[in-house]
Amino acid sequence: METQPLYSGLYTDYYELTMAQGYYLLGMADIPAVFDLYFRTSPFGGAYAVAAGCAEAIEAVLHLSFSDEELSYLSGLGFHQDFLSYLKKFRFTGDIDGCREGEIVFPSIPLLRINAPLLQAQLLESLLLNIINFQTLIATKTMRMVCAASGRPVIDFGLRRAQAQASIAAARAAYIGGAAGTSNTLAAYRYGIPAVGTHAHSWVQGFQTEYEAFSAYARLYPQSTTLLIDTYDTLRSGLPNAISIARELEATGNRLRAVRIDSGDLLMLSKQVRSSLDAAGFSYVRIIASDQLDEYRIADLISHNAPIDLFGIGTRLVCAYDQPALDGVYKLSECNNRPCIKCSNDPSKTNLPSKKKVVRYCTEDGKFYCDVIMFDDEDPKAQERVYDLRFADYSMQLPNHLTSFDLITIPLVRAGRSVADPPPLQDIQAYASQRASLLPEEHKRLTDAAPYPVYVSERLYRLRESLLIRRNNNGE
Amino acid sequence: METQPLYSGLYTDYYELTMAQGYYLLGMADIPAVFDLYFRTSPFGGAYAVAAGCAEAIEAVLHLSFSDEELSYLSGLGFHQDFLSYLKKFRFTGDIDGCREGEIVFPSIPLLRINAPLLQAQLLESLLLNIINFQTLIATKTMRMVCAASGRPVIDFGLRRAQAQASIAAARAAYIGGAAGTSNTLAAYRYGIPAVGTHAHSWVQGFQTEYEAFSAYARLYPQSTTLLIDTYDTLRSGLPNAISIARELEATGNRLRAVRIDSGDLLMLSKQVRSSLDAAGFSYVRIIASDQLDEYRIADLISHNAPIDLFGIGTRLVCAYDQPALDGVYKLSECNNRPCIKCSNDPSKTNLPSKKKVVRYCTEDGKFYCDVIMFDDEDPKAQERVYDLRFADYSMQLPNHLTSFDLITIPLVRAGRSVADPPPLQDIQAYASQRASLLPEEHKRLTDAAPYPVYVSERLYRLRESLLIRRNNNGE
Repeated sequence: METQPLYSGLYTDYYELTMAQGYYLLGMADIPAVFDLYFRTSPFGGAYAVAAGCAEAIEAVLHLSFSDEELSYLSGLGFHQDFLSYLKKFRFTGDIDGCREGEIVFPSIPLLRINAPLLQAQLLESLLLNIINFQTLIATKTMRMVCAASGRPVIDFGLRRAQAQASIAAARAAYIGGAAGTSNTLAAYRYGIPAVGTHAHSWVQGFQTEYEAFSAYARLYPQSTTLLIDTYDTLRSGLPNAISIARELEATGNRLRAVRIDSGDLLMLSKQVRSSLDAAGFSYVRIIASDQLDEYRIADLISHNAPIDLFGIGTRLVCAYDQPALDGVYKLSECNNRPCIKCSNDPSKTNLPSKKKVVRYCTEDGKFYCDVIMFDDEDPKAQERVYDLRFADYSMQLPNHLTSFDLITIPLVRAGRSVADPPPLQDIQAYASQRASLLPEEHKRLTDAAPYPVYVSERLYRLRESLLIRRNNNGE
Repeated sequence: METQPLYSGLYTDYYELTMAQGYYLLGMADIPAVFDLYFRTSPFGGAYAVAAGCAEAIEAVLHLSFSDEELSYLSGLGFHQDFLSYLKKFRFTGDIDGCREGEIVFPSIPLLRINAPLLQAQLLESLLLNIINFQTLIATKTMRMVCAASGRPVIDFGLRRAQAQASIAAARAAYIGGAAGTSNTLAAYRYGIPAVGTHAHSWVQGFQTEYEAFSAYARLYPQSTTLLIDTYDTLRSGLPNAISIARELEATGNRLRAVRIDSGDLLMLSKQVRSSLDAAGFSYVRIIASDQLDEYRIADLISHNAPIDLFGIGTRLVCAYDQPALDGVYKLSECNNRPCIKCSNDPSKTNLPSKKKVVRYCTEDGKFYCDVIMFDDEDPKAQERVYDLRFADYSMQLPNHLTSFDLITIPLVRAGRSVADPPPLQDIQAYASQRASLLPEEHKRLTDAAPYPVYVSERLYRLRESLLIRRNNNGE
């Protein structure tokens, strides 16, 4: 029996602990600090991401502790007793602000802002990145697939190919991104996600004939029979056998729910299966397709009118196959009330200093127009000129018609206590879907999506500029 | 407080449970069955993989159970009470054979062979694939990096970009593949892997100047100071400050251990840093490099004589960035003492029937020559003609000089009990390294690796052929 790993203070990069001890021993532990968690580029060549993992991240922060065994492990590695006594009583006492889970988010905008004593805020870095990076990645991937599927349900089938126990977080994030269910029974149980699945090829092989296997399954589950028809030969064997079963189910007052195709040319097969089912009078039997699907193959199938009613997605969804990591970072932006930047030799890696908030301006029909990152104390209504960081000195007058705006950065934790209970996962899914509907289409295209405009306020732009000049002059 | 997810009977695809209930209700639960777990293609375009996850997979199988809460969840989903009573007492009672953890393995050869009552063996599918697919993938990725690094240590720095809690299994698998340590403190603690790390950019930003930050760190950890020198400017700021610290450490009888470069042109920077350190008399200070490294960048740096002493690898290692999933499958090969195949419309997906073992033939100097998959009761010494499945009808006479062979398939579990305690992780790492040294170089190349020959015995070839003909004739 092990404790939840996310609640262990050891679930962190070792250097967070050496730094934390350093801050402790130097009397710097309680210096006020602000860290921002954000990503630099949208995943999958798209323009947006769906923020996910926030509720679990906050729960982990508020439960973070060190067991006696863990502390004696650290003692064995040479950590000081005074510091270990501090860790034994560790409790997060700071503030966290950030976006709602399910929010549509963009590069550079802080998903979370941690305002806490330096030691505490530092200790959270690896933990928060580990949770938020992955769930945001998967929620985004799923939303891309859901958009491509044009209203047909998408289901997570990825447990066997998931990266170990990431399968559980993946199922949660996929649900936020719009998946209708999961085959991962533990995730379904934990999160209240619909559990989905019928039988495998091995079921068919376990009987003398495919017909016997189908028939046995239909007798066991007459109200929810889905038959996998590609074990031997989809059109010559699986389909005719499924049609026989559909007839037998009708004779007992039931209806075959669906057939599933898991290999081969899904477009051709789905059309032939649809046409044979219809010809036999079973137009109500649905077709489920699976086999290395992703948003591009789904879009292609839909554009060719494949009569597929539901998509089962495994590998390409749960490990975000074409881009398996989000580049989220956690950067110190204020320390001891002094704004901080990291310059590095790569200008794109320079962060935004100070304690900030994100404001989303909307057009009259409520659609997202642009985001502006500004100081926490700035008035969104008083913004006039805003600056684009990607192009030096490019600035823009905020149009007058932007009458409404949303505060993206809201309070989540105050003095170590959650401000509100996290909403049920179903509500997070609904929120993500509703917010995505407000994002103009050009930012949602699977390929060649137009970048969504993110600006900084004039005051923030000037501060960053002055810090960069100061750094360049003293070269430290 | 949650139980270890891997030990939950719900950590499975939902269809395993619907099938299991079906077998139970039809009186088929105890039919003897054999399943094979194997992958179809080597990852990363290479020729081999490093088997990993085996000990954890077996531990999970032997601990698999259903809690009362889990059973009442299943009851709520409509599962039958009799079946739930069966699950309440569930215990694996079968046999498992397979390769040693750390073994060098190839496409088509069973990594695990499960010989158990049908219901039990079926129920393990998703769990085993989830564990073995991922750890094998990461151990393989790491070994590729370790080979590329030509003896310089490789360290896992990937926690923040890992796929959620897969970070823990990734650290374990990376260690098996040859990583010298991990930044993931929880994994280090659980598995006895060396924990590694010093400080982040935020440490440097937390002080008024970079020099003060370095100096404070060196006073705290005088015997293990590694300084990250790229927060502001590697050559103009980080390096001169690190040299000052090296001098001060010498004055107190200590030695600066290393500097770390985490951005920019690692080849140019490492050469300039090396040359400046040497000129200042600090040739003992080592250089650590990180920043989106993988085996190809490592090989390139080494081929250009980059004076890098240690590689820190994050994203590209822990999520196997360029191929984040292994295509491992779990196929029924014998049911009720009857050999089984799945044909599908894709011939490459046809499995090998029956209860089999893998024999590795070696040349006189002990190097691997070829693997042969044969019936469990076949005599490796009596093999003459063997068959290549990739090319129909291509067969080969086993050369006479193959005097020695290894049995790759060994007993791991008998009647639900582990045959032996798993070796310590250090021993598994050593075994993987020793076995890799026996694999001829042409199969270890990073690009254009020669496929390693895997054959089937004549008897197995003939059986498969006859089953395929029978399937094609009756079209079922």
